[in-house]
Amino acid sequence: MLVQMELKRIIISEIHEQQVIMLKEVDGERSFSIMIGIFEATSIDRRVKRMHSPRPLTHDLIVSVIKNMGGELRDVYINELCEHTYYAKLRIHLNGEIIEVDCRPSDAIALAVTAGVPIYVAEDVLEVVCGE
Amino acid sequence: MLVQMELKRIIISEIHEQQVIMLKEVDGERSFSIMIGIFEATSIDRRVKRMHSPRPLTHDLIVSVIKNMGGELRDVYINELCEHTYYAKLRIHLNGEIIEVDCRPSDAIALAVTAGVPIYVAEDVLEVVCGE
Repeated sequence: MLVQMELKRIIISEIHEQQVIMLKEVDGERSFSIMIGIFEATSIDRRVKRMHSPRPLTHDLIVSVIKNMGGELRDVYINELCEHTYYAKLRIHLNGEIIEVDCRPSDAIALAVTAGVPIYVAEDVLEVVCGE
Repeated sequence: MLVQMELKRIIISEIHEQQVIMLKEVDGERSFSIMIGIFEATSIDRRVKRMHSPRPLTHDLIVSVIKNMGGELRDVYINELCEHTYYAKLRIHLNGEIIEVDCRPSDAIALAVTAGVPIYVAEDVLEVVCGE
């Protein structure tokens, strides 16, 4: 089962290499944090703040590649947590089918924010990280 | 007409915001430099140095999205220089056709290095930047 999440907070620290994004359940109170790199954190941050860029940035380019190839990004989901690493998937609608592409949660969330599509987390991952 | 180029040099400076990549003609001596961001420069640099990453980085993800959607990145080319900004395109082979996707040269070059495909520059752009 997939649980819809929203991006609750982005904490960017200039003195640490790892940045933090916090996801919170849309229809509940559970939340958890993911450590990501500075590039991905600033990419998510500028999208949330609707900062305009005259040329397509890297995550804009992914959305553009998907569209130009006739597909549509439907949603993204964090499907696994293994040895402290989160795994995510993009779900792309193409010719009546859903194609799943393995990626890092940071890219998945940056793309979800760019394309305005939902972010999901597998219920079993949420149970593990929220200690239920 | 398109002229094939090779990545000649990447100059990463920690004190400047803009980094430099130099492209050189494969069958000639003309070369020119492009200013790019630190993220794109380090992304290109780690690919040239064949540094391994356990999870797909953002440019790996673009190549993976193209493959999973049934396409193949054929090459990239810098097609225009307008008001000191270079414009580039990805050329993706999909169902017997070539699809062109607008992007920044830095993403184009990072993708070419990742996928091992040629980098081209339009002859008229080369003539302008090399002053011929």
